[in-house]
Amino acid sequence: MNYTKTLEVKPIAVIKNNRTAAIDDNWSHVESIIELQQDVPESCLDGIEEFSHLEIIYYFHKSTKTFIGSEHPRENPAFPKVGIFAQRKKDRPNHIGATIVELAGRQGRTLTVKNLDALDGTPVLDIKPVFREFLPRGEIRQPEWSRILMKNYW
Amino acid sequence: MNYTKTLEVKPIAVIKNNRTAAIDDNWSHVESIIELQQDVPESCLDGIEEFSHLEIIYYFHKSTKTFIGSEHPRENPAFPKVGIFAQRKKDRPNHIGATIVELAGRQGRTLTVKNLDALDGTPVLDIKPVFREFLPRGEIRQPEWSRILMKNYW
Repeated sequence: MNYTKTLEVKPIAVIKNNRTAAIDDNWSHVESIIELQQDVPESCLDGIEEFSHLEIIYYFHKSTKTFIGSEHPRENPAFPKVGIFAQRKKDRPNHIGATIVELAGRQGRTLTVKNLDALDGTPVLDIKPVFREFLPRGEIRQPEWSRILMKNYW
Repeated sequence: MNYTKTLEVKPIAVIKNNRTAAIDDNWSHVESIIELQQDVPESCLDGIEEFSHLEIIYYFHKSTKTFIGSEHPRENPAFPKVGIFAQRKKDRPNHIGATIVELAGRQGRTLTVKNLDALDGTPVLDIKPVFREFLPRGEIRQPEWSRILMKNYW
């Protein structure tokens, strides 16, 4: 089978919040609602309240370009040039974002979540519960540029 | 814009390992190679060695069905019925998997990784570096069934 072929995915929910412009930083203050699409049954969320954290897989719908190769994160020459798969920027192949959020509540077909760094109207491709067993084991090592980049992110 | 529409994604890499059959457990012993597709430049991996952990977003290419609704995880009646978005099973809308792995090494266009729970031949949609700042803050709460289910997973 040839997996250079294109695959199709379909949004299962949409994100609603007050962040309408693409701003890099200060995401902690944004609370989001995730609302299931009309054709997705409410029962898909059953039992989700028992998890404190979820991973939201979403689509960077406002990204109009795809960067492929190596460049300075945030186009900041103070940062080293690194490959697109060594950074988390939105203008990436497939435009897929993934963020672990805190589940604040469920109301029927909607979830209220904190720490979701996605714009209003963002299509959601998947929602996964966070299991402790899937979190990294051992020490996490990351370059200095990534620490500086994240300084005001939350 | 109507995001009930279908979106297109394209594999950027493929997973190679010795796990060819869909078995639920004992993933710790599987070491995988992730090889970039021919049309993806090697420079996309520049600097990735500075990260100890990566998140691999992949496509469950061997899953032939999509479950939507609420059911017993692993079809085990000892577990409560929970919604598809409250579990991590492969037969889910969009068939997207996401796993944090340990980066063991890079050799040009390929990465060697540990703790990747995906079958040989799995198409990869994205590779993201793990930043400590994106990991969950605060205590992680999860139901008892998920702890039991994970007992022999790694």
